[in-house]
Amino acid sequence: MISATVWGENVHERTSDVVAEVYPDGMHTVIADALNEDPNIKARTATLDQPEHGLTDEVLDQTDVLTWWGHAAHGDVSDEIVARVHKRVLEGMGLIALHSAHYSKIFKRLMGTSCSLCWREAGEKERLWVCQPSHPITQGIDRYFEIEHSEMYGEPFGIPTPDEQLFVSWYAGGEVFRSGATWTRGNGKVFYFSAGHETYPIFFQEEVRLVLRNAVRWAAPTTPRWIDDAPNVPPDQAPEPITISGRTIHKPGDEGFK
Amino acid sequence: MISATVWGENVHERTSDVVAEVYPDGMHTVIADALNEDPNIKARTATLDQPEHGLTDEVLDQTDVLTWWGHAAHGDVSDEIVARVHKRVLEGMGLIALHSAHYSKIFKRLMGTSCSLCWREAGEKERLWVCQPSHPITQGIDRYFEIEHSEMYGEPFGIPTPDEQLFVSWYAGGEVFRSGATWTRGNGKVFYFSAGHETYPIFFQEEVRLVLRNAVRWAAPTTPRWIDDAPNVPPDQAPEPITISGRTIHKPGDEGFK
Amino acid sequence: MISATVWGENVHERTSDVVAEVYPDGMHTVIADALNEDPNIKARTATLDQPEHGLTDEVLDQTDVLTWWGHAAHGDVSDEIVARVHKRVLEGMGLIALHSAHYSKIFKRLMGTSCSLCWREAGEKERLWVCQPSHPITQGIDRYFEIEHSEMYGEPFGIPTPDEQLFVSWYAGGEVFRSGATWTRGNGKVFYFSAGHETYPIFFQEEVRLVLRNAVRWAAPTTPRWIDDAPNVPPDQAPEPITISGRTIHKPGDEGFK
Amino acid sequence: MISATVWGENVHERTSDVVAEVYPDGMHTVIADALNEDPNIKARTATLDQPEHGLTDEVLDQTDVLTWWGHAAHGDVSDEIVARVHKRVLEGMGLIALHSAHYSKIFKRLMGTSCSLCWREAGEKERLWVCQPSHPITQGIDRYFEIEHSEMYGEPFGIPTPDEQLFVSWYAGGEVFRSGATWTRGNGKVFYFSAGHETYPIFFQEEVRLVLRNAVRWAAPTTPRWIDDAPNVPPDQAPEPITISGRTIHKPGDEGFK
Repeated sequence: MISATVWGENVHERTSDVVAEVYPDGMHTVIADALNEDPNIKARTATLDQPEHGLTDEVLDQTDVLTWWGHAAHGDVSDEIVARVHKRVLEGMGLIALHSAHYSKIFKRLMGTSCSLCWREAGEKERLWVCQPSHPITQGIDRYFEIEHSEMYGEPFGIPTPDEQLFVSWYAGGEVFRSGATWTRGNGKVFYFSAGHETYPIFFQEEVRLVLRNAVRWAAPTTPRWIDDAPNVPPDQAPEPITISGRTIHKPGDEGFK
Repeated sequence: MISATVWGENVHERTSDVVAEVYPDGMHTVIADALNEDPNIKARTATLDQPEHGLTDEVLDQTDVLTWWGHAAHGDVSDEIVARVHKRVLEGMGLIALHSAHYSKIFKRLMGTSCSLCWREAGEKERLWVCQPSHPITQGIDRYFEIEHSEMYGEPFGIPTPDEQLFVSWYAGGEVFRSGATWTRGNGKVFYFSAGHETYPIFFQEEVRLVLRNAVRWAAPTTPRWIDDAPNVPPDQAPEPITISGRTIHKPGDEGFK
Repeated sequence: MISATVWGENVHERTSDVVAEVYPDGMHTVIADALNEDPNIKARTATLDQPEHGLTDEVLDQTDVLTWWGHAAHGDVSDEIVARVHKRVLEGMGLIALHSAHYSKIFKRLMGTSCSLCWREAGEKERLWVCQPSHPITQGIDRYFEIEHSEMYGEPFGIPTPDEQLFVSWYAGGEVFRSGATWTRGNGKVFYFSAGHETYPIFFQEEVRLVLRNAVRWAAPTTPRWIDDAPNVPPDQAPEPITISGRTIHKPGDEGFK
Repeated sequence: MISATVWGENVHERTSDVVAEVYPDGMHTVIADALNEDPNIKARTATLDQPEHGLTDEVLDQTDVLTWWGHAAHGDVSDEIVARVHKRVLEGMGLIALHSAHYSKIFKRLMGTSCSLCWREAGEKERLWVCQPSHPITQGIDRYFEIEHSEMYGEPFGIPTPDEQLFVSWYAGGEVFRSGATWTRGNGKVFYFSAGHETYPIFFQEEVRLVLRNAVRWAAPTTPRWIDDAPNVPPDQAPEPITISGRTIHKPGDEGFK
């Protein structure tokens, strides 16, 4: 059983009639429902307005994979919580950044780049092509699938070269975008997926829900959580016998600067 | 002519007699001297205690490559300056992180990982092996070179897989370390080099100085600085004619959330 | 249940008294025994002297992961069989190249590089350090393990930058080596592991056997075999309606040049 | 001055009236002309029908960058010449594979994968988007450029993840393609560029010619040619003193199996 936590900013849903009509219970609820269609995934939700944004240590202790959707309130996410989530990803928790989460603090921190892109909101058709037909995340998708009304996200996408390029999108308006890609950071698997604009019912679409389930299964850790301890190895514990030489600013037993 | 700025924390040199004896004018001065031995490099220095840590917009405007040495005072580097340097790297400025700068804010931000390692200060011998004999950074180095007294930095090194692995180190005490590696972030080239412990005269060693000069030449931008504008593309400027459909939370001309 | 086929050149074992004494039934038999200690792996063997080197289509149909050990007779492996194995890897079969298989036809074909290294046979101590402590292949290994008598393999190792660097080795004689690394080729996972010199009983060592079992589980395909069909898409089957323009050298229905 | 050799299969130009009309002197001549517009590049041509396909050791000795166009006669290229070119690339010669050269022996050997793609020849519009606006190869190109009549090449493209994704193409018929990408193999830089179908005058188009010149400058070696010698290091020449232990099948001075 994979435990997923679906984090939703949940701002547009409460401030925009347009979005509220599409997602009356919030996008996070719809995403969690999509995940829970897999009997091997147990998804719950967390939102910005909860204490600690719903991402307490207790919640993260029980989270194998975290999905993230944010847009209007990236800046309201506490740096402390971002650091906490970041540490968990490095220890092995999977992270799936959705759509406008390309600009979320956590995704930018994991990538180290601008994560910028160009964009147009015209409800045009997007066709997502599969670049790796045998990847676990693209299983069940044919050569491509289409989102009838989508926001255009276009190149250049300010990311480090992905480990794996899974989807590339074609837009009716003439652009392209590297819409699905993976990276490893520490012991955590990261997947970015561009689908999921707030004013269209994209998270109700079957192919999108399938990719989300596939991605959660792919991103779930397969080894125990690893705690990075960065130890000092005292000279008398070196694998080979050595004699100390040279001078030092440390005293024996110092932990080092971090 | 390549303009290099050598950033030095310059704390140990003023607080530790041991370090002050080795580097009476600061490590940054010795590094800058090493770079200036190349007539095509013009290196100046900047330090933590200067206004804006010596890294004003004016200085960065004239910096092709920034080298970074920090250790005791990583936390004292202002987040605003780190963001400024980060933006410059993404635009094309080269960055060379030296030794304990593996834990600097700027290097960690560029990597997105813990950048941790294990370590031992025993003055043991380090032998740096060349993994890419034809890389610009390793030119002039034979199969390996040795640092007679070095601090041990050992695996696991908490970095994303490098684009290029240039050096791997052997230590007398029995450890190994991926001591020289490169990454691209945005339009900037990044090189990490583990040499340079503060209590040993490593920056006076000829092979180290050669690698530093090679690295600065390699990291210098070869194309104009690129300003990431992440534009909105209005529907009437799409490359292909499209009709707007669907609803929106944006008004025409909105810049989007960042 | 994962089906593994352990391919052994099985030449030294029959021509060298030294090797025959260590591996009287061949290295392949010892490797297969190591794998079969995992109840979820069923390993069989295949050798150079069998018809089709023991790698018939029937055998490969039932092979999830192929391990490869060769040394003296790389040139005797038929190009046809190499092409057959290569195709299977691209379709999803895992490949584990052991020790001197760095120069095997199949590994060189998958890498596209020289795969060269420097070497010394002096029975010196090798210490293999774990670079990714949370990777499935390094599970159960502490910070490092040692091989008391090993052949030295040293840098530069002529490989493309690995996707993941799992082990780096330290040698008593002073060299280092990137001794464990992974790549993806097509839909197949590839692991190179340098352990396994023929004159030392390395494949009887528990840590080596553990890594082999871990690697087989890691390399096993998790999605159905993918057959690469590289189709022509006739104009009337384009996702968007198009009108043919321009001239052609093809007739309708042509398969294209391959 | 960069020496480029433009290799052309030159078969369609002599067997197809359609192609001969577009390229009466062969595509290779037009490509060489494009390169020679840069006063710092000196380009000559070589073709399949010449002795040694025009790629003698003397020619390769004077070649910094080789461009390759082939289609109908990939199988007629001698394996010996492919091995010779491959060795040169690993030593540092740049290689630029154009259009249908995705299936050339040399490109497939460098990639290690199928290099397959799907395709349609309908003369439709292709729009090539720049993914890395500050890369040397994309200099002078705005956000995109268009080829009015092009052959569609579509995903999945059977390549290893590129080091750098430079162009992604949009097609009027609805597909996308990773149309410009780079890899390093040994000491050689490799660029694949999908432009250049034989029945359209694409190599006369200014943006394509600009990319070709940029690519040649980028791929030119910046360090001396490196000859991979893979030496045996005798025990008495180990960097650290060691005592030989264990048994061996080699005699002193053996070169090892390759």
